[in-house]
Amino acid sequence: MSGNTFGTLFRITTWGESHGTAVGVVIDGCPAGLQLDEADVQKELDRRRPGQSEITTPRKEKDSAEILSGVFSGKTTGAPVSIMVRNTDVDSSKYGALRNTPRPGHADLTYELKYGLRDWRGGGRSSARETIGRVAAGAVAKKLLGLKGVEVLGHVVELGGICSKTASIEEVRENTERNPVRCADPDAAVEMEAIIRAARSEGDSVGGIVEVIGIGVPAGMGEPVFDKLNAELAKALMSIGAVKGVEIGAGFKSASMKGSQMNDPFVMSSGKIRTLTNYAGGILGGISNGEPIICRIAVKPTPSISQEQRTVDMSKMKDTRIQIQGRHDPSIPPRIVPVAEAMVALVLVDMMIRGGFIDPSTTG
Amino acid sequence: MSGNTFGTLFRITTWGESHGTAVGVVIDGCPAGLQLDEADVQKELDRRRPGQSEITTPRKEKDSAEILSGVFSGKTTGAPVSIMVRNTDVDSSKYGALRNTPRPGHADLTYELKYGLRDWRGGGRSSARETIGRVAAGAVAKKLLGLKGVEVLGHVVELGGICSKTASIEEVRENTERNPVRCADPDAAVEMEAIIRAARSEGDSVGGIVEVIGIGVPAGMGEPVFDKLNAELAKALMSIGAVKGVEIGAGFKSASMKGSQMNDPFVMSSGKIRTLTNYAGGILGGISNGEPIICRIAVKPTPSISQEQRTVDMSKMKDTRIQIQGRHDPSIPPRIVPVAEAMVALVLVDMMIRGGFIDPSTTG
Amino acid sequence: MSGNTFGTLFRITTWGESHGTAVGVVIDGCPAGLQLDEADVQKELDRRRPGQSEITTPRKEKDSAEILSGVFSGKTTGAPVSIMVRNTDVDSSKYGALRNTPRPGHADLTYELKYGLRDWRGGGRSSARETIGRVAAGAVAKKLLGLKGVEVLGHVVELGGICSKTASIEEVRENTERNPVRCADPDAAVEMEAIIRAARSEGDSVGGIVEVIGIGVPAGMGEPVFDKLNAELAKALMSIGAVKGVEIGAGFKSASMKGSQMNDPFVMSSGKIRTLTNYAGGILGGISNGEPIICRIAVKPTPSISQEQRTVDMSKMKDTRIQIQGRHDPSIPPRIVPVAEAMVALVLVDMMIRGGFIDPSTTG
Amino acid sequence: MSGNTFGTLFRITTWGESHGTAVGVVIDGCPAGLQLDEADVQKELDRRRPGQSEITTPRKEKDSAEILSGVFSGKTTGAPVSIMVRNTDVDSSKYGALRNTPRPGHADLTYELKYGLRDWRGGGRSSARETIGRVAAGAVAKKLLGLKGVEVLGHVVELGGICSKTASIEEVRENTERNPVRCADPDAAVEMEAIIRAARSEGDSVGGIVEVIGIGVPAGMGEPVFDKLNAELAKALMSIGAVKGVEIGAGFKSASMKGSQMNDPFVMSSGKIRTLTNYAGGILGGISNGEPIICRIAVKPTPSISQEQRTVDMSKMKDTRIQIQGRHDPSIPPRIVPVAEAMVALVLVDMMIRGGFIDPSTTG
Repeated sequence: MSGNTFGTLFRITTWGESHGTAVGVVIDGCPAGLQLDEADVQKELDRRRPGQSEITTPRKEKDSAEILSGVFSGKTTGAPVSIMVRNTDVDSSKYGALRNTPRPGHADLTYELKYGLRDWRGGGRSSARETIGRVAAGAVAKKLLGLKGVEVLGHVVELGGICSKTASIEEVRENTERNPVRCADPDAAVEMEAIIRAARSEGDSVGGIVEVIGIGVPAGMGEPVFDKLNAELAKALMSIGAVKGVEIGAGFKSASMKGSQMNDPFVMSSGKIRTLTNYAGGILGGISNGEPIICRIAVKPTPSISQEQRTVDMSKMKDTRIQIQGRHDPSIPPRIVPVAEAMVALVLVDMMIRGGFIDPSTTG
Repeated sequence: MSGNTFGTLFRITTWGESHGTAVGVVIDGCPAGLQLDEADVQKELDRRRPGQSEITTPRKEKDSAEILSGVFSGKTTGAPVSIMVRNTDVDSSKYGALRNTPRPGHADLTYELKYGLRDWRGGGRSSARETIGRVAAGAVAKKLLGLKGVEVLGHVVELGGICSKTASIEEVRENTERNPVRCADPDAAVEMEAIIRAARSEGDSVGGIVEVIGIGVPAGMGEPVFDKLNAELAKALMSIGAVKGVEIGAGFKSASMKGSQMNDPFVMSSGKIRTLTNYAGGILGGISNGEPIICRIAVKPTPSISQEQRTVDMSKMKDTRIQIQGRHDPSIPPRIVPVAEAMVALVLVDMMIRGGFIDPSTTG
Repeated sequence: MSGNTFGTLFRITTWGESHGTAVGVVIDGCPAGLQLDEADVQKELDRRRPGQSEITTPRKEKDSAEILSGVFSGKTTGAPVSIMVRNTDVDSSKYGALRNTPRPGHADLTYELKYGLRDWRGGGRSSARETIGRVAAGAVAKKLLGLKGVEVLGHVVELGGICSKTASIEEVRENTERNPVRCADPDAAVEMEAIIRAARSEGDSVGGIVEVIGIGVPAGMGEPVFDKLNAELAKALMSIGAVKGVEIGAGFKSASMKGSQMNDPFVMSSGKIRTLTNYAGGILGGISNGEPIICRIAVKPTPSISQEQRTVDMSKMKDTRIQIQGRHDPSIPPRIVPVAEAMVALVLVDMMIRGGFIDPSTTG
Repeated sequence: MSGNTFGTLFRITTWGESHGTAVGVVIDGCPAGLQLDEADVQKELDRRRPGQSEITTPRKEKDSAEILSGVFSGKTTGAPVSIMVRNTDVDSSKYGALRNTPRPGHADLTYELKYGLRDWRGGGRSSARETIGRVAAGAVAKKLLGLKGVEVLGHVVELGGICSKTASIEEVRENTERNPVRCADPDAAVEMEAIIRAARSEGDSVGGIVEVIGIGVPAGMGEPVFDKLNAELAKALMSIGAVKGVEIGAGFKSASMKGSQMNDPFVMSSGKIRTLTNYAGGILGGISNGEPIICRIAVKPTPSISQEQRTVDMSKMKDTRIQIQGRHDPSIPPRIVPVAEAMVALVLVDMMIRGGFIDPSTTG
């Protein structure tokens, strides 16, 4: 497979299947001296775990993080931090029926074609449970970023066609975790929740857009030419299942803008060079300019829907139909927020180490 | 800098500045036995070179490719292929004035902040001339892909607010190179050209959207979890200067779709498993499913405009204004088409080698 | 730390400390379809485990391998294979005394200087228990190699000044595991064992030389220029604690040979091109030539000895003396044999995948 | 080929064949602000160039370095530094005869087997001319190391069976470049020179041992577990053609030492923790301890000898004999000294950047 590691100096390797023994992550390159305990990790895992509210999957898992290495007397030692979460509420009974009939919009077919076999229980390696490792590692990345005054915030800005009003960073920080859809606009949140309930009752699902903001990121981060900060963010975010698009700053809107609008003017402000607007999303020439980093991702509607769908029977190479059972979120964006934050945090930490902003050996 | 190499097994390293001696690329990991000569490379360079038509920059350079290594008796040997293009029409006189006043929307400020100095002549390393190395390497990648029946086609689908009609692959193949904007819809092309002329006369610039299609890509390409085919494409395309967004298949439209629309139904067709629609853009779970790979990029308007703009004088840390001289394209999308194709071709070749579809040692 | 991953396409990441919860490895890039169960791994772990005989450390651990992911219905799936071994017989009581007094010949001082703190229990991350992950991964590598007819055999050729007679591959295969020193020459083995007992009774330790042979390796493996097969082997073997030298084929003897002796003549034999001698150790220009791959490593005497030694007290920055307690092998070579075999197997598998000899996706 | 890049953060990619247009190197990851001009590079190239004295190959090339990018106003900019050396004194006439008859001890056979074809002129990519790129990059690395007070010195310690007396660092620094064999012991140098002349007159060649010392290397460099400083040095040095062994500190002698001898005692000296002896070669647990880094390499006798040798005719698959014409060094060690120094310097710079000892962005 050889694609389960992410990062250059702060590197994570995730492992595990949805219905296997456990899922986990090994973090290599975390500097020594960082205060870390399981509660730090658990806090973030609780934000992505299923069963948080009635609009998410009813799968109930505590998703308890166990730190197996790399921490001594409450501090990281510079050695790999291995974190494991056991799979507890596993029910593979519904998946036997899907063995030969790939679910549309899922990885079933492509894994089968690539590997000649697959762990068909609960999506196996392609399950969203794989993101547990990302979120656990992201929790460590966030602690490191916090030492440098960098904060990463995500929120849902569109869901099922409902758009949130533009929110200030303060509003995002205050409002997002107060509603189950993680929208910084409380009114839109109510509508989004209604849309999700409606989709579920129709056996359908809805997509949305999530924005992640990096606040306090120093200027000078990012490596030209191929390892531009935006390029690394694009890979990181596009590697999350269900993400079909990534944009930075004005993003796709920039396609219909003029240069005279898009160019953020430079101005002096309190002795620092700032920009009047931030259409660039905090990145120029692949390098951060000191303004907030703005990324948005397009999240497709959950492919697991309970309506009957056309598919093929791979054992007979014949057309057929399926109706997917099992427990699924009717909308991914609310739960993808902590995952997207984690990926942005991982990129920022890696780039800060690569750029010499964080000492690779010790936080001391 | 340490970010000038792209790829895992088919790796390219680009080098060179806009107004330096030369720009170039070293391709490592090209299998032996591929027929290759300078004309193969020149053909693609001619598509990106300045001065192709009156809507591009008047900088006139032949951009002659010289293959310095890795080819013997007309065939690659498995050794690195080093390709160099000398900079000939260099005029740095206009740039001295910009030494202390970073151009809005450009990398001038961020390079200065990161490195403490910069080659300010013509944008230096952050110039679009850096893409010569990408296009030269992409030409080699395309030849390799051709051996496996894979074709990569790019075209402009939106420019300055004008959208092209949906075009068939056949129309893209036939029409795109027939007009200077590289649009597969001849009527839209005329409008786009007019928009570009208008922008230039106003001292302004316009952005657009470019689509790249991978045709004939076999199922099974892409490595989960982090090295998904879409993730690698996102990084590759976002690493091109001026790109602010990347989407795959339905992309940002998927955010407002329902699962019952978005899921491409599987059907048997001529003995093969196909999909009825292609909202997924040919990729499921990060792995190609055999349908055409569809990517689109948002290209911002050229930041170099001749209108007066606000900026700062870095030597005095004071507000000031600049008016950029020099020779610039009023719109990047037409010339970014071969660059975007090159990046997609590089990803596809690398993933085909990684996946065992192309022998890493020899084409024989 | 960022150095806990090894390999390019078949990649392993090890984690864990001597006296922590567990040690383990994540294998990324194992093709799907390989039959694998815990017994395959256990067999190799049992060869490196402490307490195998009275000449090794009396630490008693079963070192039971648990496969946590990547295997479904008895076969690998292409997903990462995560293997964990819990630490059971942990006794950190002896190590508190060493907190401020680094043991000569050990990593105590350098970890402290690099990281500002260290897990001082049992050597922490620098303990030989780290090699459990290597051996577990090596077991998987060996199974893959077996499918291609490649075998990896290690044996002790020198210990405490006693040299083994030159042994045929057949003798190595038959005799090595029959004596506790893992020497293919039964007479030398008896002497070596006596030397080890004598060293222990003097509170001292002895070094030795281990040879590893790769049999059945096809011609054409290895990537010029920096990733020569011998270069990758050198890194792999030198990365094992206590190894102070690596040589290939004639090795250091070649320094005093003439070209007319050293050059292995090519001859036709049964329709194949072979060499009459094998001073090259099976590698020419960094690429295998089809002859057996021959590597040897110099293993220093165990640094943990019970004699009194000079050291410093890091808390007072003063000279002092220590006497190391705890349970240690008086000689490392016998137990390093399976570790060295594992490292060679890992390099060979990685190079076979990189060279196109093993399909990266599936063994099927 | 995909193995022509070396390093993690300070990365070099070499390209070029012996009888092609040119050879060169691209250095990626050199911090901005380093004063650099062609004379810095030329100085080192002149040490490895052919025709320096009558004991080396009579091939006469000036090997003039041309810096093509990455330097502006006499300083590095952080962009890739591309350096090219044109091949001038190329005479391929002698090689046509060797097209089908691989030279024993050379890479001819293995390249042919791996790639199905090869550039047979002058050894092509496997020629020692490939090391020009290493030496050029090493010159840049040495300048960076110099800023941190680190020096790298190489010398021949054994040649054709003649051993140099143990030399102090001062003697190495003073004496080595004063004789054509680069031996710090003037008496041994005379004998070695005689041995080389004798070998040449017999149409034969001799091997030797080269030692490289890293002086002033700070403690704390090296990344456990796989990227130990010694492991990276081993790979770097073993990747040089003709090297058959690498050892650190006591190296292979440690195999016959006792722990009580080998363990370097720690002592306080002028307020610093030092070791009384340096059998460890400056590295403990893969991390530098502040003492000089000591490496030695075994260099095989030049495989190109003029005596008749047995080989095969690959076009007929029959035994035959060859007598190699052309211009060759009868002994490699004197000219390998600057190459080995370069590889050690490259490892040290890369590890200093990885460890946070050198700022990756700027020297300022």
